[in-house]
Amino acid sequence: MAEKPVWEQIGSGFVQHYYQQFDTDRVKLADLYTDASCLTWEGEGFQGKNAIMTKLSSLPFRSIQHIITAQDHQPTPDSCVMSMVMGQLKADEDQVMGFQQVFLLKNIDNKWICTNDMFRLALHNFGA
Amino acid sequence: MAEKPVWEQIGSGFVQHYYQQFDTDRVKLADLYTDASCLTWEGEGFQGKNAIMTKLSSLPFRSIQHIITAQDHQPTPDSCVMSMVMGQLKADEDQVMGFQQVFLLKNIDNKWICTNDMFRLALHNFGA
Repeated sequence: MAEKPVWEQIGSGFVQHYYQQFDTDRVKLADLYTDASCLTWEGEGFQGKNAIMTKLSSLPFRSIQHIITAQDHQPTPDSCVMSMVMGQLKADEDQVMGFQQVFLLKNIDNKWICTNDMFRLALHNFGA
Repeated sequence: MAEKPVWEQIGSGFVQHYYQQFDTDRVKLADLYTDASCLTWEGEGFQGKNAIMTKLSSLPFRSIQHIITAQDHQPTPDSCVMSMVMGQLKADEDQVMGFQQVFLLKNIDNKWICTNDMFRLALHNFGA
């Protein structure tokens, strides 16, 4: 069986790690961002590891579980990896919701860092 | 009223132009790609303007209409703009479907080019 392209290994490895951390102990996601990273969460913008972690830590649920239903990865001209994720999440006892998220990953000091992150609940596909 | 940040103007301008062209005469989308551009369409990969345009031209509908319900834009460390779009589309007489799409835009020779493009129907949020 042919090996997956390297960018797909990088992207899918990051995605697996990200949601595993998010679901078990999301304060550890700090390691994946730098002070230049950008997050847009449901249309609201945050820049830098501290602002991003303050936002992620303050999300109003005790437990969350993500299931990934589709993911795509591409290499970019600047040697980054772009990853798009579709999935479902369940927060506490709320109903299951669809979501989509995009990551841009850059190799900095031999580590793949998330420089850009955008998250939206899937309800935006159906709202006006 | 404060002006929008420049990357948001670039991203939202591209998005408006892209879907307008897609809905009226999608062969003209060729101008937005280069021979290094990547498209992942429903999980299938295409590289280069020719392969991308062959795919987009062969999509099996006569008419299509996109409605954008949410869009986010960010600047990237390599002076690109990343844009995530959520919306709905109606192809011919099919039922309305949700979709999500991501673009990475790079300024090449004073023109904003799409180097990376990923498209998925929103049904992937709900399938396994």
